[in-house]
Amino acid sequence: MTRVFPFSAIVGQDEMKQAMVLTAIDPGIGGVLVFGDRGTGKSTAVRALAALLPSIDAVAGCPVNAASEAEIPDWAQVEDRTIVSKPTPVIDLPLGATEDRVVGALDIERALTRGEKAFEPGLLARANRGYLYIDEVNLLEDHIVDLLLDVAQSGENVVEREGLSIRHPARFVLVGSGNPEEGELRPQLLDRFGLSVEVASPNDIDLRVEVIRRRDAFENDHATFMQHWDAEDSALRARILAARETLKTMKTDDAVLRDCAELCVTLGSDGLRGELTLLRTARALAAFEGANAVTRQHLRSIAASALRHRLRRDPLDEAGSTTRVTRVVEEVLA
Amino acid sequence: MTRVFPFSAIVGQDEMKQAMVLTAIDPGIGGVLVFGDRGTGKSTAVRALAALLPSIDAVAGCPVNAASEAEIPDWAQVEDRTIVSKPTPVIDLPLGATEDRVVGALDIERALTRGEKAFEPGLLARANRGYLYIDEVNLLEDHIVDLLLDVAQSGENVVEREGLSIRHPARFVLVGSGNPEEGELRPQLLDRFGLSVEVASPNDIDLRVEVIRRRDAFENDHATFMQHWDAEDSALRARILAARETLKTMKTDDAVLRDCAELCVTLGSDGLRGELTLLRTARALAAFEGANAVTRQHLRSIAASALRHRLRRDPLDEAGSTTRVTRVVEEVLA
Amino acid sequence: MTRVFPFSAIVGQDEMKQAMVLTAIDPGIGGVLVFGDRGTGKSTAVRALAALLPSIDAVAGCPVNAASEAEIPDWAQVEDRTIVSKPTPVIDLPLGATEDRVVGALDIERALTRGEKAFEPGLLARANRGYLYIDEVNLLEDHIVDLLLDVAQSGENVVEREGLSIRHPARFVLVGSGNPEEGELRPQLLDRFGLSVEVASPNDIDLRVEVIRRRDAFENDHATFMQHWDAEDSALRARILAARETLKTMKTDDAVLRDCAELCVTLGSDGLRGELTLLRTARALAAFEGANAVTRQHLRSIAASALRHRLRRDPLDEAGSTTRVTRVVEEVLA
Amino acid sequence: MTRVFPFSAIVGQDEMKQAMVLTAIDPGIGGVLVFGDRGTGKSTAVRALAALLPSIDAVAGCPVNAASEAEIPDWAQVEDRTIVSKPTPVIDLPLGATEDRVVGALDIERALTRGEKAFEPGLLARANRGYLYIDEVNLLEDHIVDLLLDVAQSGENVVEREGLSIRHPARFVLVGSGNPEEGELRPQLLDRFGLSVEVASPNDIDLRVEVIRRRDAFENDHATFMQHWDAEDSALRARILAARETLKTMKTDDAVLRDCAELCVTLGSDGLRGELTLLRTARALAAFEGANAVTRQHLRSIAASALRHRLRRDPLDEAGSTTRVTRVVEEVLA
Amino acid sequence: MTRVFPFSAIVGQDEMKQAMVLTAIDPGIGGVLVFGDRGTGKSTAVRALAALLPSIDAVAGCPVNAASEAEIPDWAQVEDRTIVSKPTPVIDLPLGATEDRVVGALDIERALTRGEKAFEPGLLARANRGYLYIDEVNLLEDHIVDLLLDVAQSGENVVEREGLSIRHPARFVLVGSGNPEEGELRPQLLDRFGLSVEVASPNDIDLRVEVIRRRDAFENDHATFMQHWDAEDSALRARILAARETLKTMKTDDAVLRDCAELCVTLGSDGLRGELTLLRTARALAAFEGANAVTRQHLRSIAASALRHRLRRDPLDEAGSTTRVTRVVEEVLA
Amino acid sequence: MTRVFPFSAIVGQDEMKQAMVLTAIDPGIGGVLVFGDRGTGKSTAVRALAALLPSIDAVAGCPVNAASEAEIPDWAQVEDRTIVSKPTPVIDLPLGATEDRVVGALDIERALTRGEKAFEPGLLARANRGYLYIDEVNLLEDHIVDLLLDVAQSGENVVEREGLSIRHPARFVLVGSGNPEEGELRPQLLDRFGLSVEVASPNDIDLRVEVIRRRDAFENDHATFMQHWDAEDSALRARILAARETLKTMKTDDAVLRDCAELCVTLGSDGLRGELTLLRTARALAAFEGANAVTRQHLRSIAASALRHRLRRDPLDEAGSTTRVTRVVEEVLA
Repeated sequence: MTRVFPFSAIVGQDEMKQAMVLTAIDPGIGGVLVFGDRGTGKSTAVRALAALLPSIDAVAGCPVNAASEAEIPDWAQVEDRTIVSKPTPVIDLPLGATEDRVVGALDIERALTRGEKAFEPGLLARANRGYLYIDEVNLLEDHIVDLLLDVAQSGENVVEREGLSIRHPARFVLVGSGNPEEGELRPQLLDRFGLSVEVASPNDIDLRVEVIRRRDAFENDHATFMQHWDAEDSALRARILAARETLKTMKTDDAVLRDCAELCVTLGSDGLRGELTLLRTARALAAFEGANAVTRQHLRSIAASALRHRLRRDPLDEAGSTTRVTRVVEEVLA
Repeated sequence: MTRVFPFSAIVGQDEMKQAMVLTAIDPGIGGVLVFGDRGTGKSTAVRALAALLPSIDAVAGCPVNAASEAEIPDWAQVEDRTIVSKPTPVIDLPLGATEDRVVGALDIERALTRGEKAFEPGLLARANRGYLYIDEVNLLEDHIVDLLLDVAQSGENVVEREGLSIRHPARFVLVGSGNPEEGELRPQLLDRFGLSVEVASPNDIDLRVEVIRRRDAFENDHATFMQHWDAEDSALRARILAARETLKTMKTDDAVLRDCAELCVTLGSDGLRGELTLLRTARALAAFEGANAVTRQHLRSIAASALRHRLRRDPLDEAGSTTRVTRVVEEVLA
Repeated sequence: MTRVFPFSAIVGQDEMKQAMVLTAIDPGIGGVLVFGDRGTGKSTAVRALAALLPSIDAVAGCPVNAASEAEIPDWAQVEDRTIVSKPTPVIDLPLGATEDRVVGALDIERALTRGEKAFEPGLLARANRGYLYIDEVNLLEDHIVDLLLDVAQSGENVVEREGLSIRHPARFVLVGSGNPEEGELRPQLLDRFGLSVEVASPNDIDLRVEVIRRRDAFENDHATFMQHWDAEDSALRARILAARETLKTMKTDDAVLRDCAELCVTLGSDGLRGELTLLRTARALAAFEGANAVTRQHLRSIAASALRHRLRRDPLDEAGSTTRVTRVVEEVLA
Repeated sequence: MTRVFPFSAIVGQDEMKQAMVLTAIDPGIGGVLVFGDRGTGKSTAVRALAALLPSIDAVAGCPVNAASEAEIPDWAQVEDRTIVSKPTPVIDLPLGATEDRVVGALDIERALTRGEKAFEPGLLARANRGYLYIDEVNLLEDHIVDLLLDVAQSGENVVEREGLSIRHPARFVLVGSGNPEEGELRPQLLDRFGLSVEVASPNDIDLRVEVIRRRDAFENDHATFMQHWDAEDSALRARILAARETLKTMKTDDAVLRDCAELCVTLGSDGLRGELTLLRTARALAAFEGANAVTRQHLRSIAASALRHRLRRDPLDEAGSTTRVTRVVEEVLA
Repeated sequence: MTRVFPFSAIVGQDEMKQAMVLTAIDPGIGGVLVFGDRGTGKSTAVRALAALLPSIDAVAGCPVNAASEAEIPDWAQVEDRTIVSKPTPVIDLPLGATEDRVVGALDIERALTRGEKAFEPGLLARANRGYLYIDEVNLLEDHIVDLLLDVAQSGENVVEREGLSIRHPARFVLVGSGNPEEGELRPQLLDRFGLSVEVASPNDIDLRVEVIRRRDAFENDHATFMQHWDAEDSALRARILAARETLKTMKTDDAVLRDCAELCVTLGSDGLRGELTLLRTARALAAFEGANAVTRQHLRSIAASALRHRLRRDPLDEAGSTTRVTRVVEEVLA
Repeated sequence: MTRVFPFSAIVGQDEMKQAMVLTAIDPGIGGVLVFGDRGTGKSTAVRALAALLPSIDAVAGCPVNAASEAEIPDWAQVEDRTIVSKPTPVIDLPLGATEDRVVGALDIERALTRGEKAFEPGLLARANRGYLYIDEVNLLEDHIVDLLLDVAQSGENVVEREGLSIRHPARFVLVGSGNPEEGELRPQLLDRFGLSVEVASPNDIDLRVEVIRRRDAFENDHATFMQHWDAEDSALRARILAARETLKTMKTDDAVLRDCAELCVTLGSDGLRGELTLLRTARALAAFEGANAVTRQHLRSIAASALRHRLRRDPLDEAGSTTRVTRVVEEVLA
């Protein structure tokens, strides 16, 4: 019903677009956090991504988009069990969604009419095998963010409420946008996102005019505009599908593992999520670029996205996170 | 039942009246925020606007005022499907309205009597294709304002609550009035209104006497008074309808796009909503004035309304927002 | 059941009595705010007023006291539709009244027994065409005061809750009493009352003895006491009815309008509610005094009541509000 | 079931006992506030009072103890309508009583089983024509105290909640005990109690031993102890009944009214409740002492109880309230 | 199911054990407050006490353990009315118990299935004639502690909620444990406990080893251990029963009463609860020791337990409460 | 469904692994608290432990995993009563689990369909005879942690809510992980955990590479990887089972008891839980190592885990808890 701006037609914002493409290749990279001022097109990009993503094969009537009949959860009453091609789900967490709609809850209608205690799946079920998008994630209450990250990481939604004891797969990429001016996320939460990217409006007049011109064409010359950019989106989609295949045989030298570890130790990032994310993301990038092995150049390209949000505050180092990551990358991968 | 003061009979307040007329020509401009002290006639103006607006063609019994049978949402049970002419909806958000009445909710009556889980649409449904008015928007809780702006911007109301999973079109212009003495809106929210205007009581004795005299005539000599001003309102309504047509073929030079971008970069407004609003509003004004292309003069006339509420606070610049916009307009469009 | 002290037998408190008489002549003047220490007879006066007011003609069984069958709201199930004479309603907002009883709510009994979603009108319905009295209005929560003032001003109660979407006329004079020692109302709320008056206990021993003596007679020699003062109340009631007629043909020179505007501009009261109230109140006083045109003397008599609560705090002017109004009245109307 | 200590056997505490006896003679005096440290026997005294009070004639099955069939409220379903003699009700407000049990509420049982919306009366109904006792009134929430004082003063309980619109007589004496160390009541609330008394444990060893000895006898030699003191209580009860008769013909000179007014003006107590209470309490004392007219001596005896809690704080006068009242009584009634 | 450590096998903690034994002899002494650090065996002692107490004769099916058929409350539906021997009830207030389960509430099952409004008794009913134990009483909300102390003192549970108006006997000894590091009780609450005791872990290595050895034997050599200590417990139980008899004829000289009063006046404890508790506790101790009259020595032994928690803070006296009581006991009872 | 990382394949983290193995040998040691930064594999370890633990024999359909038919609680409706071998339950407390699902609650389905008041067991029932794991225990509300520790310590879940009065065994080891940066637990709560361990990411590059390499093999070469480590896990499981047998005949000299007491007195840990835990844990370690008596070396190995979280803050001693325990162990067990 609403018309979606093409992903490829987005002017600039390369880091954000890269992060989205790489999680499309390997959802195991984890969630993406998009930082940026108001009006920088964060929501537009996510909705554009939804249109770009390849479709999935799934049981037609299954509430969790099961890939085969065997994977339908036992609590689900599924009538249409044919395998169909569905768009990759991109689920919006609307403001004001209640917790019961997020995790699922007792099905009131069946309880009232049939006296049965059935489970009514929520947004986490629908997001399975896709994306869950939260605009202004920093406005959500901490306990919901905690819950979403928990589910995103374990890939499973465990529901213990209202007399229900249910679990179902909930493997999705969590995409959150936030405005750093509106309050920060706790470091504990930051660390559980795979990648983070920064977006900003361009200050270059020509770029800004280009943005306005494309928006204008999108609205006032819609058909022509879409025809051009749909072709670009299709090409990108094909490349993502190819990269998924390439990834299966991607080689990773021990030297790369050592590079990852050294980067993290030097930056002093807590825990080991840093190197695990570096590794997966570099592999996805290598696959996207058609390489058959990860190189230091791949690490360099994605280090900021993978590590920027994992640094401890260093009162003696006034540089921003991005600068600190870049500096260490230059030293370690010199 | 209640008698409405004619829009044209409002003394002064030209900026507010302009903003309302322009959003009537192009609702895509976005919401209007009206700042002003108590007693400056903010509510009167909105109610007057309601009477001024052209009517719409809509399905008689449709809860979202669908323009054609094809656009009736699938959850709606509509019996009378004839197309009728309805007044443009102007919906008041009354103080104390509960969230379920705003976004819609489970229909309790049908749940109790028939055991069916049906959706009962709320004010957002009724406001579709019209206006939603919130008196003293700064007294509303932030999460409701967030929600309203979200829906206003996306043009769609997504409901995930009480076991319901519903969406319906909700394209409306949000008009909010506020008293800056009673607390401010967050910058993040301000930016999402299209235009902002400032109203004040005139200090000129003659103008004030004129206001009182018209009010007095409205109350004590109603019929004569209305006869005179209804004619004025009709003329204005015809001009709005004409402008809608003109707008479809409005031309916009690249130079204008560049002007918009330069104004925003110079003022340092975040994001790109500034130039997009400048462009749409200037076009609507050009159409209202019967021009077939946008000129710098149009930009000058609406720059303050479109940008005033998007400035960052500048501690070194003590001038008010309006003055800062005016100054930059003079420089950039010199 | 409870015995009411006669309005005319109240000792002193002339400003309060004048304000109540004038709103009885023209309810359009708006609400009255009574400021005063504990124990100064604020509640007694309101209950006395109730007994003084002329009766109204209304549909016998109508929940909103409709004046004719045509004005019965469509949601009301009215069986007895004869026109009867009823006392002017004076409704008390009891402490602890819940919001649903104020604005009306879903009729639980009909919902449970018949599965129908019917509206059960609240105190705002019952107060239509009369008075709504709130003792210690400053103890009410702001959002309720806001709501009451909103309805009082628009003359209509709009209900959007529990699946109901109802509106009905609610034209009433809001009378609130408050103790300034117990916390203040926001300026925004103050401005929406038509008049404000100050009451205090007399310090003169003879007056105080007179108060006690009348109270004593009221309790211990009830019949004689009531006989005497009922006559006084009847005379006052007749004068109010006469004044309502006189008001219809009251003349107001432009000079008076100009006086109103100058008073407000000089005092710096925000908005235009000040002059509109001055005008209406002065007219009502003129009518009460049997004059056929408003004079400066009428303005002088009511200026303090109409303007005192609309002044901005002036840190350089230590005089109280009443003194400031009086001083400006002397200058402007010299 | 629980054994009650005899009122007459209470050692000392004369001011408290006087206040309770006088309100038993004339309940119109209003509530009594008992200030005192923990463990000074405040609760014991109230429970003793309950046993002392004369019985009342009332309709057997009436929830508000109506004196005659005509006074039964219309909402009450009363089967046994014989007039019986009942103990004067002394109702305890237990800690944790919910608001619906205080004011009354919808009868859930009838609503569920018969679908009827009936009123289930609360503690205020049961307290009609008797006493309502609140231990530690300063621990109650302000809005409940407000509500109780409101009802106590108007003599009527007005219920507007859960779709009910009910009123019934609720004439009772409110007795509240409080520990000044545990937080104070607002002056606004204090003023609405008729009398206040102060209690303290005696510091005299002999008196304390006497208290322990009587308590010991009450517990370990119950029958003998009760036999002795029941006789004393009966005599006191007879004197209260006689005083009620005497009161009907009590004379009060204008000089007494003037004395009351002068006392209050000199003390600067707000409002006129001071003199009205002085007058009623002095009359009750005169009646208790068998006099047929009020004298200055009666005023002197009760002035502290009637006025102590109505004084404004005077930062220049460090004396306690009691001292200040005594000093002024000596001056004015010299 | 859970195995209980024998009371007699508790190492040290003599003051606590004495307080528990004396309230077992005379429950009228009132509650016991046990202060002490974490891990000092407070809970173990209370559970041990439960096993030590003599059994009671009670109606088999009665929810309040009525001693005879005549004492069964009228609201209770009791089928098995035979008199049986039951263990003295020792009821735990579990963390998270809701208020309705403490005081009792509407029986939902009967309301739903039979539409009857019946009372479902709570923990206060079950504790009648026994003990109610609250671990960490200082973590409970004040209003619950207030409520429990109120019921404990009056011996009656008065329920006014959910349309119920019920009362039943609730005579029990309230035992609360608390850690002074976790927040204090208000003085007002402290005063209403009869006795207070302090417990601490021994610092003596031999004692500590003895504690561990007994714990070890209890767990690893259970049968032998229990055989030995059950005998000790039985002897103690017999002594408690004998003391209850002795108590009935205990003599108390006036000199003892005077001693109690002098101790309290000298210590400046508020109210008279101090001397009443001193008297009862000294009598119980005398009975436990087989004496037929109370002596100063008995007073000396229990003075600290009975008075320690009733002292006002004295900023000039830095000694702890126990020291201050001991010093005054030495002076007064020299 | 989700693949579990093998316990034996965890790199480093010896203290944590030891604590988990010892509680698997003797669950009576009590809960384990795991402190550590984000990303240090705390959750991974607990899930690995679940797969390592020996299975239990239990009634097939019993909600509390009863070991024999005799131990099935009376409220449970169990159809399949055969004894089967089940995995040791390791229950996750998911974020957002409601209190009723933790402790159990009224079975709504049976209440609605059959009008019966039945108990629906919660997570505490399912955890019986196993482990309950709480990720980020410091984010839970204090009253829930209190409740869980209470149940863990008593081994019994007592439910008093919604008209239910139920108890059932709930013997489990509580494992909580926490990040000290995210807020601390109250000392009162800390003391009730048996052991505490600290985990950190290794700073050694080789170790970090080893972690990544094993993770990589686990994901990309799953079958081979699991085959190798399952063998290691089986060996460890066998050793745990053997140690349980050895423990039954373990000898403990009085000298060891004295060592425990001296360690605790010297460290100044409150209460006696310290030495009791030292004793049990040392015994379990001795059993794991195949010894038949506890030695000082066993005490040395587990002293830090058993005592570290029981120290009072000492402002004069800036050393961390671990250092202080180690220093005292060296002195006392020199």
